[in-house]
Amino acid sequence: MIYIQRKERFSAAHQLYNPNWSEAKNDEVFGKCANKNFHGHNFTLTVTVKGKINPDTGFVMNLVDLKKIIQMHVTEKLDHKNLNTDVDFMRGKFTSTEVLAMEIWKILQPLIATHQAILHCVRLDETENNAVEYFGD
Amino acid sequence: MIYIQRKERFSAAHQLYNPNWSEAKNDEVFGKCANKNFHGHNFTLTVTVKGKINPDTGFVMNLVDLKKIIQMHVTEKLDHKNLNTDVDFMRGKFTSTEVLAMEIWKILQPLIATHQAILHCVRLDETENNAVEYFGD
Amino acid sequence: MIYIQRKERFSAAHQLYNPNWSEAKNDEVFGKCANKNFHGHNFTLTVTVKGKINPDTGFVMNLVDLKKIIQMHVTEKLDHKNLNTDVDFMRGKFTSTEVLAMEIWKILQPLIATHQAILHCVRLDETENNAVEYFGD
Amino acid sequence: MIYIQRKERFSAAHQLYNPNWSEAKNDEVFGKCANKNFHGHNFTLTVTVKGKINPDTGFVMNLVDLKKIIQMHVTEKLDHKNLNTDVDFMRGKFTSTEVLAMEIWKILQPLIATHQAILHCVRLDETENNAVEYFGD
Amino acid sequence: MIYIQRKERFSAAHQLYNPNWSEAKNDEVFGKCANKNFHGHNFTLTVTVKGKINPDTGFVMNLVDLKKIIQMHVTEKLDHKNLNTDVDFMRGKFTSTEVLAMEIWKILQPLIATHQAILHCVRLDETENNAVEYFGD
Amino acid sequence: MIYIQRKERFSAAHQLYNPNWSEAKNDEVFGKCANKNFHGHNFTLTVTVKGKINPDTGFVMNLVDLKKIIQMHVTEKLDHKNLNTDVDFMRGKFTSTEVLAMEIWKILQPLIATHQAILHCVRLDETENNAVEYFGD
Repeated sequence: MIYIQRKERFSAAHQLYNPNWSEAKNDEVFGKCANKNFHGHNFTLTVTVKGKINPDTGFVMNLVDLKKIIQMHVTEKLDHKNLNTDVDFMRGKFTSTEVLAMEIWKILQPLIATHQAILHCVRLDETENNAVEYFGD
Repeated sequence: MIYIQRKERFSAAHQLYNPNWSEAKNDEVFGKCANKNFHGHNFTLTVTVKGKINPDTGFVMNLVDLKKIIQMHVTEKLDHKNLNTDVDFMRGKFTSTEVLAMEIWKILQPLIATHQAILHCVRLDETENNAVEYFGD
Repeated sequence: MIYIQRKERFSAAHQLYNPNWSEAKNDEVFGKCANKNFHGHNFTLTVTVKGKINPDTGFVMNLVDLKKIIQMHVTEKLDHKNLNTDVDFMRGKFTSTEVLAMEIWKILQPLIATHQAILHCVRLDETENNAVEYFGD
Repeated sequence: MIYIQRKERFSAAHQLYNPNWSEAKNDEVFGKCANKNFHGHNFTLTVTVKGKINPDTGFVMNLVDLKKIIQMHVTEKLDHKNLNTDVDFMRGKFTSTEVLAMEIWKILQPLIATHQAILHCVRLDETENNAVEYFGD
Repeated sequence: MIYIQRKERFSAAHQLYNPNWSEAKNDEVFGKCANKNFHGHNFTLTVTVKGKINPDTGFVMNLVDLKKIIQMHVTEKLDHKNLNTDVDFMRGKFTSTEVLAMEIWKILQPLIATHQAILHCVRLDETENNAVEYFGD
Repeated sequence: MIYIQRKERFSAAHQLYNPNWSEAKNDEVFGKCANKNFHGHNFTLTVTVKGKINPDTGFVMNLVDLKKIIQMHVTEKLDHKNLNTDVDFMRGKFTSTEVLAMEIWKILQPLIATHQAILHCVRLDETENNAVEYFGD
């Protein structure tokens, strides 16, 4: 087994809040992330895929294919969007980095499986100091 | 003369649009940046100040003071905010990186002058690839 | 299980030496790191925590809480300090990055456990090329 | 067990192609990487080693020794070289990042074992967005 | 006047040599950069443009236009190419970073002038430690 | 004229204090930087040199020569040293980044002049957020 990694980036707005809570409770828990007019980030998405080396190419999987999958199915749906209002697969969900990483996993896992490779990790950096990693269940 | 530099960061949402134009014209010119639900970035603000070395400290200006000025007067007003709706000094202005850099200059220039130092440059990185620098008139 | 990460930074001086060895032996093994007048680094501490997503917040653990724990119990005790002489939890220990990472683990592990989360990794970057990772016993 | 990491860099030219395929097939699969006049990269090699802390030094293994092993046996053989024509241990092999990482593993694994430490991971970053990790069989 | 900056990247092979010199003289002056089988780099190109802010857009120049100009006229001609053999505008020239930066200037300067903006600087980073800046004559 | 740049790094300890002041006054002005047991940083030194392109090499100046000058005359004297006690050219001076940059200029300026090139800028990054630039008198 060997692991390959591809980074893609997107810039998006979001707001953290729980609709079952009062505004005061949201402010207490989410602090400035609860701003109802939204704030935003440059997110970096790092996708790690594992597999065996194809003896005809020296590749686990062509990184150009991996790049296209990530762009078409994930980052083009997120870039310059509002995660709370514009993204079908985030509807009704918290737009925390944790939840976003898990939803991206659900999208990418079957698509990568069709390339004789296995999704290993979805990593999402929200700022230079904060990140999330999800390895599936 | 010697130059000192301090970086501070903030995360904000914004939208680029011209209220005198149709939605179609805005989309044509501003592309995905015109998204009416906003998008966002992690901005990096780099402030360069010039002056002579104070013979009692070896400093042009104490970087702790410069940091506090930038945080109190600029980044705390921008961080986790919507540049189009939440920021007093951006009201009625384009929220392009160019205009934001010039407005930050106007705020910082007199404040730094009170510390026997001269504001030299306001640099704003909007993404890892796009940046603006303003050196005053 | 999902993993969240927070980076904090500190700048410190240190010296590597074994008090049971001669100066010559220390110089031979530790080289320029044995300088008895100390040298220093900008350290980057990356703390990874794992847990389940809280259905009320979308968070494993509030990163603001994680940040405060790291700052109060670790980085404020290390920043602008001499690791050999100023830090209570390093007294009588080698100030190698390995030992420092293990001592930080001992401090953080019980504190994070009180937040329904599990400390997964303490990573310490000493320079842009040298780093240590500790995952507990 | 604790993990230590050392980064080294090298700049090299290479070409991706399968000699059993037509030029058209090579172009189809490898795209611009198949350019027969070569292209090149600044590669970053990150070597992770694990072991127990030596009670006389506070080290898993002296990073100066690890650096010398990597430089003498790997990066000096790759830096400013053509991976397809100049490197003995890549002769007759695909010069994909995957294969290169595995060949570096074969060289480093026995050398590190002589220092009471265990090679854990060879990571190779080919660009800022593409990387490979190999943890052995 | 305000300055805007756009970064683009390309990966290329090259060799430094003077055809009027012996191989020994080339090796003496250019060292490992003279390798006749080529080596390569990930280059980062940073283009700085200056101008006045357009009152209809808040932009000096649309960064999307600047990006397209750089990609179409420069980086697509350099990416995954051999600078010594594949690039029309480098034919018969030294492929040093200095000369490459000056040739890129000659291409970009008139193209940017058609957008009511002025090319200010072409910066080329060859490695993380080596870079060149050209501001025109 | 064209500009070339070389980065070198060093790790050092230092303390900021004015010997003419009381300990209380030093603490008030220099804060945690006044720690009498020292703290330290990974410094990055960026040297910019300008000149004309040599028609025999395509270089302003061989970067290998520039690297050797910087290492031999500056960074080897600073790396893993205490700036307050171990460095001859800093004796009796403030070890602020400003003063250090100016002293480095004095050393490098005549050495670079012997290579038909002109020292343009000495930049010193002390942390990821704080830096100094000196362009001579």
